[in-house]
Amino acid sequence: MSSNFAPLQNDTFLKALLRQETDYTPLWLMRQAGRYLPEYRATRKGAGSFMSLAKNPGFATEVTLQPVDRYGLDAAILFSDILTVPDAMGLGLYFEEGEGPKFERPLKDEKDVLALQQPPAGSLQYVFDAVTQIRSALNGRVPLIGFAGSPWTLACYMVEGQGSREFHTVKKMLYQRPDLMHRILRTNADAVAAYLNAQIAAGAQAVMIFDSWGGALADGAYQEFSLKYMQDIVNQLQKEQDGRRIPSIVFTKGGGLWLEQIAAIGADAVGLDWTVNLGQARALVGDKVALQGNLDPAVLFAEPAQIRQQAIAALESYGQPAAGHGHVFNLGHGISQFTPPEAVSVLVETVHEHSRQMRQAGR
Amino acid sequence: MSSNFAPLQNDTFLKALLRQETDYTPLWLMRQAGRYLPEYRATRKGAGSFMSLAKNPGFATEVTLQPVDRYGLDAAILFSDILTVPDAMGLGLYFEEGEGPKFERPLKDEKDVLALQQPPAGSLQYVFDAVTQIRSALNGRVPLIGFAGSPWTLACYMVEGQGSREFHTVKKMLYQRPDLMHRILRTNADAVAAYLNAQIAAGAQAVMIFDSWGGALADGAYQEFSLKYMQDIVNQLQKEQDGRRIPSIVFTKGGGLWLEQIAAIGADAVGLDWTVNLGQARALVGDKVALQGNLDPAVLFAEPAQIRQQAIAALESYGQPAAGHGHVFNLGHGISQFTPPEAVSVLVETVHEHSRQMRQAGR
Repeated sequence: MSSNFAPLQNDTFLKALLRQETDYTPLWLMRQAGRYLPEYRATRKGAGSFMSLAKNPGFATEVTLQPVDRYGLDAAILFSDILTVPDAMGLGLYFEEGEGPKFERPLKDEKDVLALQQPPAGSLQYVFDAVTQIRSALNGRVPLIGFAGSPWTLACYMVEGQGSREFHTVKKMLYQRPDLMHRILRTNADAVAAYLNAQIAAGAQAVMIFDSWGGALADGAYQEFSLKYMQDIVNQLQKEQDGRRIPSIVFTKGGGLWLEQIAAIGADAVGLDWTVNLGQARALVGDKVALQGNLDPAVLFAEPAQIRQQAIAALESYGQPAAGHGHVFNLGHGISQFTPPEAVSVLVETVHEHSRQMRQAGR
Repeated sequence: MSSNFAPLQNDTFLKALLRQETDYTPLWLMRQAGRYLPEYRATRKGAGSFMSLAKNPGFATEVTLQPVDRYGLDAAILFSDILTVPDAMGLGLYFEEGEGPKFERPLKDEKDVLALQQPPAGSLQYVFDAVTQIRSALNGRVPLIGFAGSPWTLACYMVEGQGSREFHTVKKMLYQRPDLMHRILRTNADAVAAYLNAQIAAGAQAVMIFDSWGGALADGAYQEFSLKYMQDIVNQLQKEQDGRRIPSIVFTKGGGLWLEQIAAIGADAVGLDWTVNLGQARALVGDKVALQGNLDPAVLFAEPAQIRQQAIAALESYGQPAAGHGHVFNLGHGISQFTPPEAVSVLVETVHEHSRQMRQAGR
């Protein structure tokens, strides 16, 4: 597919992911299009449910652009949900007011697992349409990130039927019937790889795999049941589109202990949560991958002076930019719905200003 | 206080904590006296609420001994709750059916924090009475562990008023008013140190500090707001009783990234959750501390063959015993109420047998 999209004006984010020199540290925020923004709540009110927003490319485009317009962030991310893929597999995604996502038909037993199939052709077209429409609407201002859930994280929801604190049901299957668990993960990995490649074909300029629940796994089980399948996906990803490299980011929340192994699966960048020391992480991964993260979203509940202090501390912890290294500033997890919108302005200004100053001082 | 307790018959647990040679790897389970045991549920039915069990030394003794009787574990742990200390400070601990613990009077503002006081004399006597009664009832079979929550973990409940997923309220205070947070933590640390020393005086033969929520903190914040205060407690602990060393264990759930720092605060042992690789952890801490952990409690949902395999894998991951090293087998978190009691028998037998075999093979 040959692109008719406008040329990219701000490629700072893509350059940082590819460990190329940048004038400042680029910044975006996980879940940046969300309920903390009054303009999002207004659009959502008009659209109805979360999924009716996500399934309508017009609405998805509108809310994707809102935080980019308001804050001058360095990347946009597709407005969608990680559970679109198992929904398309027929599990019946639904949301109940005030609760997390649930599935009507979770994978309860061997019969359910053996019946699991790839999403039917066309079932995720609404996502790819949204990607193309958002990319067009961005008009080259900043790059668009596509994303998907990791095979393990999807499996958690597919087996539990909903979010969980302890993951009893899915872990019971993992330890009791590893063969069934591997079958689900194999199916998920192939589906996610195809899904991300279709997002790339539709206009996504970088892709991210969210492994929200990898950190719930034991050492050993993480490598076998989560990391391996993310590596399979990374191997299957289309690496270029329209002559431009499409960088990939993998993020296991709670995966700081496994950083060196995550950095070795072939992705361009690794996302970090706030428990990780950025400077130590950089020393560990060297020039193998860029790093993305890792401010505690709770910092955004503080006053401007503290937000500035914590943002500067994170930049200084990562340290001076250098050839072959790259840092994308982000939170260590999704932004809270209770965040005051002004707090994000303080963060964005601080990161942009201070990271420019660091580069000046380093010359 | 001079002891009239029976001489200790099985000191394998204490020896492992002090990194002395043992014939096998000792084993106990966090939350081993609990709802997964039918005999516990029977006692609980007679006693009424959780706290009426914990506050009655007779009942507390009965349930503390149940898992020791059933499984031949190598240590008993006081049946109590980490929130007894803030309850004694006047915050009003209560439990609602099917929900976690809550406080009637959480610390909402500066006024509440400034009014916080040490527990009144005698307010925790029921705990020390239980310790003495349990120690007597054990009659020297295995050592008795006393315990408390960490200052930070107590503060989470004291400020949030209940458990939390994101810890917005307490983290907001931490980032916005670190002075208030330090005041709470200072008060908690002094109270916990006095509380653990009183448990030691009453008969506890080892003590453990549970930092259940330290892993929610950012790198940097963890060291300042959790680890520092655990170190203060360890410094204040009575190190000997009746001529015998009283070992201390610190456990931060989700603290694997900070293992070297935790190992340096002066405790005898560090608890590990299942995300940590035991062999790597041992290499990191060397002969500085013993290690306790770290099987995923979900393994106990599997069939006997898998339980055996996973328990052996954990023992082999820790590796051959050696001078100056010590391993206490445990779960990486509390045992689930849904665990089949027979699963624990398989685990105990496997750990005892296989660890003896490893020592034979190593000679």
